[in-house]
Amino acid sequence: MQQALAKARAALPHEVPIAALIVSSSGEILSLAHNLTETISDPTAHAEIVALRAACAQRSSPRLPDCDMYVTLEPCPMCATAISFARIRRLYFGAYDAKGGGVEHGPRIFQQPTCHHRPEVIAGMAEAESSQLLKSFFEAKRA
Amino acid sequence: MQQALAKARAALPHEVPIAALIVSSSGEILSLAHNLTETISDPTAHAEIVALRAACAQRSSPRLPDCDMYVTLEPCPMCATAISFARIRRLYFGAYDAKGGGVEHGPRIFQQPTCHHRPEVIAGMAEAESSQLLKSFFEAKRA
Repeated sequence: MQQALAKARAALPHEVPIAALIVSSSGEILSLAHNLTETISDPTAHAEIVALRAACAQRSSPRLPDCDMYVTLEPCPMCATAISFARIRRLYFGAYDAKGGGVEHGPRIFQQPTCHHRPEVIAGMAEAESSQLLKSFFEAKRA
Repeated sequence: MQQALAKARAALPHEVPIAALIVSSSGEILSLAHNLTETISDPTAHAEIVALRAACAQRSSPRLPDCDMYVTLEPCPMCATAISFARIRRLYFGAYDAKGGGVEHGPRIFQQPTCHHRPEVIAGMAEAESSQLLKSFFEAKRA
């Protein structure tokens, strides 16, 4: 999660500081990405989606059943659904997102009866640090 | 929707026959795409996501507030959330998807209190044709 947090900081000042890392069961880091929404004009370029696409490209497979994802913020419903499609084994996330999250908030994607793969979820890892990073970004933006 | 259905047929036999088209308010077609999940090993490469990325790239903007999307099947929760992020004005979809849909089924993304942009939704356009196309694909796959 510390590597993801460092990558999230690298997204500043143009992008919301969120990053995701995908690691295989053997400990190999397959991808590490931050948000790119504004940079590449792509509303789907959240850190999780960018990381999933890169890891799947590396594996030449749309599924990563032996892989875990670390992400600094609770994934939104788009990303949570993509994580399920990719068959990610374990999801570790940092700060909770009451406004935009889709795992523990909003549609709670993995708890939907129509969700066919539910990763194990470990929430609140380095929560204070991740939360503070986002808070600073939005305060600076408003100032 | 007929153009989207023709594109969906072009996805056969390797991909699930689903396609999406994005058109501006002046009637310009910005993108037309079918599912590419297996072809490019990308679990996020649903027709809607591919079409959104292409249209946003063309506009150099992550938002398309004057645009409408036509898609042959009810979008899943991932795609519905991406459609909301892109500020799509109107969403026309063909067949309903009770198993995987996220608009009229499952998490009903646009009805979530945390959803900040709800497109106007016109459902069931060329429903029989779209539904038959998918039914034939899955029957052939099982055979």
